[in-house]
Amino acid sequence: MNSELIEIRRLIHSNPELKYEEFDTSLLVQNKLKTYGLDFESKIAGTGVVSLVDSGKPGPTVLLRADMDALPIQEENQVSYRSKNSGKMHACGHDGHTAILLGLAKEIAKDRSILPKGRILLCFQPAEEGGNGADNMIKAGILEKYAVDACYGLHLWNHIDIGQVGVVSGTMMASVDSFEIIVHGKSGHGALPQHTIDPILVASHIVTSLQSIVSRNIDPLEPAVITVGTFHSGEAFNGIPEIAKLTGTVRAYSKEVYELLPNRFESIVENTAKAFGANVQITYDRIDKPTINHAPNAELVSKVAKSLWGESCLTEKNTRTMGGEDFSAFLMKKPGCYFFLGSRNEKKGYTHPHHSSYFDFDEDALELGVAFWQALIPEALLFG
Amino acid sequence: MNSELIEIRRLIHSNPELKYEEFDTSLLVQNKLKTYGLDFESKIAGTGVVSLVDSGKPGPTVLLRADMDALPIQEENQVSYRSKNSGKMHACGHDGHTAILLGLAKEIAKDRSILPKGRILLCFQPAEEGGNGADNMIKAGILEKYAVDACYGLHLWNHIDIGQVGVVSGTMMASVDSFEIIVHGKSGHGALPQHTIDPILVASHIVTSLQSIVSRNIDPLEPAVITVGTFHSGEAFNGIPEIAKLTGTVRAYSKEVYELLPNRFESIVENTAKAFGANVQITYDRIDKPTINHAPNAELVSKVAKSLWGESCLTEKNTRTMGGEDFSAFLMKKPGCYFFLGSRNEKKGYTHPHHSSYFDFDEDALELGVAFWQALIPEALLFG
Amino acid sequence: MNSELIEIRRLIHSNPELKYEEFDTSLLVQNKLKTYGLDFESKIAGTGVVSLVDSGKPGPTVLLRADMDALPIQEENQVSYRSKNSGKMHACGHDGHTAILLGLAKEIAKDRSILPKGRILLCFQPAEEGGNGADNMIKAGILEKYAVDACYGLHLWNHIDIGQVGVVSGTMMASVDSFEIIVHGKSGHGALPQHTIDPILVASHIVTSLQSIVSRNIDPLEPAVITVGTFHSGEAFNGIPEIAKLTGTVRAYSKEVYELLPNRFESIVENTAKAFGANVQITYDRIDKPTINHAPNAELVSKVAKSLWGESCLTEKNTRTMGGEDFSAFLMKKPGCYFFLGSRNEKKGYTHPHHSSYFDFDEDALELGVAFWQALIPEALLFG
Amino acid sequence: MNSELIEIRRLIHSNPELKYEEFDTSLLVQNKLKTYGLDFESKIAGTGVVSLVDSGKPGPTVLLRADMDALPIQEENQVSYRSKNSGKMHACGHDGHTAILLGLAKEIAKDRSILPKGRILLCFQPAEEGGNGADNMIKAGILEKYAVDACYGLHLWNHIDIGQVGVVSGTMMASVDSFEIIVHGKSGHGALPQHTIDPILVASHIVTSLQSIVSRNIDPLEPAVITVGTFHSGEAFNGIPEIAKLTGTVRAYSKEVYELLPNRFESIVENTAKAFGANVQITYDRIDKPTINHAPNAELVSKVAKSLWGESCLTEKNTRTMGGEDFSAFLMKKPGCYFFLGSRNEKKGYTHPHHSSYFDFDEDALELGVAFWQALIPEALLFG
Repeated sequence: MNSELIEIRRLIHSNPELKYEEFDTSLLVQNKLKTYGLDFESKIAGTGVVSLVDSGKPGPTVLLRADMDALPIQEENQVSYRSKNSGKMHACGHDGHTAILLGLAKEIAKDRSILPKGRILLCFQPAEEGGNGADNMIKAGILEKYAVDACYGLHLWNHIDIGQVGVVSGTMMASVDSFEIIVHGKSGHGALPQHTIDPILVASHIVTSLQSIVSRNIDPLEPAVITVGTFHSGEAFNGIPEIAKLTGTVRAYSKEVYELLPNRFESIVENTAKAFGANVQITYDRIDKPTINHAPNAELVSKVAKSLWGESCLTEKNTRTMGGEDFSAFLMKKPGCYFFLGSRNEKKGYTHPHHSSYFDFDEDALELGVAFWQALIPEALLFG
Repeated sequence: MNSELIEIRRLIHSNPELKYEEFDTSLLVQNKLKTYGLDFESKIAGTGVVSLVDSGKPGPTVLLRADMDALPIQEENQVSYRSKNSGKMHACGHDGHTAILLGLAKEIAKDRSILPKGRILLCFQPAEEGGNGADNMIKAGILEKYAVDACYGLHLWNHIDIGQVGVVSGTMMASVDSFEIIVHGKSGHGALPQHTIDPILVASHIVTSLQSIVSRNIDPLEPAVITVGTFHSGEAFNGIPEIAKLTGTVRAYSKEVYELLPNRFESIVENTAKAFGANVQITYDRIDKPTINHAPNAELVSKVAKSLWGESCLTEKNTRTMGGEDFSAFLMKKPGCYFFLGSRNEKKGYTHPHHSSYFDFDEDALELGVAFWQALIPEALLFG
Repeated sequence: MNSELIEIRRLIHSNPELKYEEFDTSLLVQNKLKTYGLDFESKIAGTGVVSLVDSGKPGPTVLLRADMDALPIQEENQVSYRSKNSGKMHACGHDGHTAILLGLAKEIAKDRSILPKGRILLCFQPAEEGGNGADNMIKAGILEKYAVDACYGLHLWNHIDIGQVGVVSGTMMASVDSFEIIVHGKSGHGALPQHTIDPILVASHIVTSLQSIVSRNIDPLEPAVITVGTFHSGEAFNGIPEIAKLTGTVRAYSKEVYELLPNRFESIVENTAKAFGANVQITYDRIDKPTINHAPNAELVSKVAKSLWGESCLTEKNTRTMGGEDFSAFLMKKPGCYFFLGSRNEKKGYTHPHHSSYFDFDEDALELGVAFWQALIPEALLFG
Repeated sequence: MNSELIEIRRLIHSNPELKYEEFDTSLLVQNKLKTYGLDFESKIAGTGVVSLVDSGKPGPTVLLRADMDALPIQEENQVSYRSKNSGKMHACGHDGHTAILLGLAKEIAKDRSILPKGRILLCFQPAEEGGNGADNMIKAGILEKYAVDACYGLHLWNHIDIGQVGVVSGTMMASVDSFEIIVHGKSGHGALPQHTIDPILVASHIVTSLQSIVSRNIDPLEPAVITVGTFHSGEAFNGIPEIAKLTGTVRAYSKEVYELLPNRFESIVENTAKAFGANVQITYDRIDKPTINHAPNAELVSKVAKSLWGESCLTEKNTRTMGGEDFSAFLMKKPGCYFFLGSRNEKKGYTHPHHSSYFDFDEDALELGVAFWQALIPEALLFG
């Protein structure tokens, strides 16, 4: 089986498409589903595709998710299946996720008896990378239309070895917000500060004061990050500029911290500017929610993994991360679990981190992914 | 003559009285004036005394000021005339000022022809040291009642040599404000900052942000100071306290800066606290205004000094200071000039700064002071 | 049995003794052990007592710890057994811990067959509250002398309900460091900052810069706290003081962070002072290490709890805290586990937090504590 | 006479040349001097020209300076003589200075009896605008070669009215330093600050800490400015960059402050970076020294002005500025005076500030400038 999975994965890998432009990938998915004899609905939230597989018996509906989009990165790997699209690359493994879910589709199309009852919704999603693809599929109504009861998401993970499964109960990945701050001061000559409002000084005080949110306002047991990633102001050494522009990212693990952070952020930025007589414009975008696994579903994933590959396949190491994942949107709406499937293989040289221009993964993981979904389905449908 | 001046000065020196408690000193002044045959009005703003000396001819009224109060300092000098009042000391030279003005009173009582026209108002003032004595005499109405046209104030000055006169046009001494800030945070355990609002952090940001007023909001050519002199907060190393308390002083030279400073101060303190979710209580007292000499009156003082002691007696060195002086209140209302009369004498050991517990001055300056007033009177009355 | 446990606990409660002054408590322990027919060694690290109970069969030695010291708090409870020592109070439950371990002593003295093999070392420790009592018993050599293989510590916990057991694998309580910083500036007049080095400004920059350690230098997934708890400097609003004094606490969960924090702390404090031309003296004390449970021992505690009171008795809520515990010293040397035994009972009004002057706990927990130790002993001796 | 002055000025104005490229201007100067029958030396420090006019009688040598360079500004004025060189403009009045000194050259070439004794060195200087032209002429040896005893510099000034002369004893213009700071941190992902050294935070602390130099280290009576004019760091909102780059300017009035500032600057920048584990590279350039007039020479200028245009022509308003002037280099070596000649005329619309793209001045000032030099020469030669 794996040769076919590899073939599909490589086909997708060599033709990476950025968020909301996954036209060819979506067509490939649709064609495969058609070949397997499965019905589907397409053009959801742009390029999204869902296929409902029904056991014919009453029972819950369980959504399984694969994301399809690539990244704006120039691939440096010299492999036969390397990206043919300049400046675009499947550097996160979404090509593998899609191949795995298609592999599963083929299997359950052949033999629906794997579903003891209820229904499986295969979900091929656009725009995971900062594009709110999951959120937009939810807004398009798929959870209601297909009466989804639970959801699962699988991610190949180069930080854990092939054969291992990383899963935790509770939060596993952080929320991701982005912000832009424009400090409006008053420009003038550097030797005459009294006629100006110095936006560089104001922005510097904003940067130093923002540190206090993580150090003082957040439970030390709760992860949180605020990073100012860019600071740009001024053109002349002897001038005081009109504006300073900052951008950055904010991350949290718990719902409480996720709610608190933008309020504290806004309070510090606005009042600090006011203290110095400056104005600010804040743009604050909530990209990903925290990815919070529901305890019973996380336990189910652990149980399935153990039944497949033994107790020792489970790891919590390198499993909780400050990265973000838009599967979180599903988990905010429905019970479920997001988990990592090990794709690292040091012997084979698959050790590069996700989003690296050298990223690649052990393709043996593809078959394991299909096997995992196959083992999860009966458990999830009986449990749900 | 000087022996009598010295006698009076030493009498006052040995019996120092703090602001608004200059009862004996005021009585001494009144008795002397009576002895000299001069009328006077007493109990102005507490212990203040004024005596009007009229030439009988129409002309302006010129006020000459001496301050009478001592300081809460324990004298360390071992002189015959040392302070008999524990913890109180004439450590600024006001004993000398009063003696000089009494010396002048005696002279003009003997011979009013020194006044070519108009009137001289001898003004013995309480509470120069942080007590707003000048302001309170103004509020008591002496400027209107005696139709004062101009005002002059003399200060013995241990930073310039005996025989010299320090005077500048424009500002010569700073305004003096004091402030107290109470930052109201929210107390709690030091290991649980998330339940608190940390007033030590808030107050620290206030201290660092306040630096920007002098560095950014004030014309670099204009003197200004903001000093946080005390910072007190907390009792336990592992607690976060409820409040932090700061006190300090603010000083300026020009009217513009004097007006600007409290606004910028308040803006930084209030908005910085707000940025961190804390509240503040600000108490802001304006103790002394800037002492701004009027150009023509300053020129007159220079001219008189030169006529007495030659061109070289004039100095601008160590003449502009960041110290405060409540004679500024008179100068805000009427044209006039405040100036320094050198009282330093390194050979005799009179070098200690004002407000030192070792302060003393060269008593030869007393006679020079009377001579200066005598020479100024005709010029000031003809000029005014 | 509980009536005797309550009697002992109340006796200790009414006679609270501060760290290293647990003389009466230690005597009570020794007398009880004597009564029960157990040998013991006393005067270890001051008032410490250990009693070895041997099964007679080869096997491991397992240490069970109770702490004996009270706190410098004035009790506000109006109970029959309230503190008779003014300003001292068993406000943390150590009276209960000692009563429980004595209860266990009586049981195993009566019937040593509870020990399948090996030996139990009952350990009554002084000075848990900031006194390094555990560390000092280790330095006195008890781990070597009694060949201790594993260690367990029980704490009554008012943040979880009676009948529940709180335990986690890995870190459960934080390390506790304390620090004192003395910033040596240069004093002077508040209007003449140029002749001074302003220690209030320097210390304020230290406070704001220290925030960056938690916000930037620590893995967001790792708990850490740095709190400046006191800041004292200055006496006069118009002066600049010579020194500023700060104290505070530093806390961590992992060994890596525990090692990193003092280095970053020192770097920020020393170099910030240097930036402004000031000197600093730092006193940095490591009070408690992080309390890190060993995974197998934590699992054993969970297993015992479940076997006694069912699956639902286990809780992780309110179990990880930023508080410190000197049992950590044992856990740094030997495998083991520290855990919480619920003592909260809202119906009975036992809800006040530890270290509150209103703290008291549900005495039904005493019997549960003895039962837990009894159930743990065979498991721990067979496992160890 | 003025028509010829205007003609020369407009010729220069229409052909502005940037620093060290004043080739045509220098040739024009040389040709005029030749026409007037004066010897000269050219190519000093590039395009500099000096012409010595000797009275034939023993006496001092007095240098009179005109600067020749234009600015990289696009002229917006629509006048017949507007700049023909795109992006270049005489926006500071140096065209006028050169015309005035040439006008003087013609007069004294005609009649050397204006020199009672000694010699006048007419000095046409390149690169006043940030180019150290004065310094480079000094380094070329003109002060020694021509045994210069005193020096005077005239600047047309649009901040005071035509007919007025602005001059002060002591410092009149500030020193100008420029700096570049490169903070070397350690880049990484914005969600993993623990693996990075955040240069934006470090640079922000540098900016806020630098404020303390002006607010705390400098005598409030002494002007000083430190401005960070540019701050650039980072490319991605979710990254932490490797470096942050700051540039700015530092200004002072007194020699003491001029010496102090770079030391304090370096101490704050280097130690603040060290506090956070970062490195810095500092480039610090001393462009202009403070322009400090010597009291006797300033008095001489005042005297000459009064003798020409009466007491009221003198003004101190808008005369002391925080701008810089490389004539300071002459004043550090030789006694002398730099002064402003009013060129503002509100009725004629000449009110734009120097360095504005709309700058122009009242050409009636040209004749006044020549007249001033003519009146100064005998006084300066007799005095020097």
